[in-house]
Amino acid sequence: MTKPAHTSNEPCPVARASSLIGDRWTLLIVRDAFDGVRRFSDFQRSLGVARNILSDRLRRLVDAGILAVQPAREGGAYQEYVLTEAGEDLFPLVLALRQWGERQLFSPGEAHSELIETATGEPVAPMLPRARDGKVLMAHDATVRKLA
Amino acid sequence: MTKPAHTSNEPCPVARASSLIGDRWTLLIVRDAFDGVRRFSDFQRSLGVARNILSDRLRRLVDAGILAVQPAREGGAYQEYVLTEAGEDLFPLVLALRQWGERQLFSPGEAHSELIETATGEPVAPMLPRARDGKVLMAHDATVRKLA
Repeated sequence: MTKPAHTSNEPCPVARASSLIGDRWTLLIVRDAFDGVRRFSDFQRSLGVARNILSDRLRRLVDAGILAVQPAREGGAYQEYVLTEAGEDLFPLVLALRQWGERQLFSPGEAHSELIETATGEPVAPMLPRARDGKVLMAHDATVRKLA
Repeated sequence: MTKPAHTSNEPCPVARASSLIGDRWTLLIVRDAFDGVRRFSDFQRSLGVARNILSDRLRRLVDAGILAVQPAREGGAYQEYVLTEAGEDLFPLVLALRQWGERQLFSPGEAHSELIETATGEPVAPMLPRARDGKVLMAHDATVRKLA
């Protein structure tokens, strides 16, 4: 993807990413897009969000190159919002949100939706930071090397 | 962690997680906490955020059980904010934000901070969703199984 024009000179990738997608509705729109939601009215029904907020967040996602607008597959007046390649690349982020939520925000035994591998029906494995040699990395094993 | 009292009945873990941490400043506070920032004044200096916003976000993070308040190690009047176990468990999420930002929000060759394995100095490996058998999963290989 071309770097969005409004991206800052901020050298921290976490900060650049947070300024684009660090927003509750934005994250839920991206989640829904992965689930196949494409139309304004379907996002609105799924999220129960005010139209003006949904319009704003969709526009920002299009400006950021995360969603693209295209005519509806069936033709007609509808337009659809679909994930771009950069948007599809948010799959690990949405999975990280999901897995943290599953681990930390549900009581033992409390039911929640699950992400499964379609081919096998098996739950997706826990996604963990790893060193180059494949060893699981904890936060205290890693350091941010800032620009000189 | 005990499930935060204000957690909704929302069955989607992505939605519960987004409602707690789907906020730019919240994500940057968590990032800084992983980098060892502990004091209000140091968060403020790092983030350049208004005091009232920083106070609000720190309070929410404490209420959510992501940060805990403790007396400063050196004693004195300061209090410090440190990641709880549930907060440390956000490491994959912060890494996912970082790695998406690195891939999508920097021009080729543009410098950015890097997360390295402290012991080896090697950059942390790309973190990818995987099936139970270790195979890399793309979004289109997975399906959300909603509650009946």
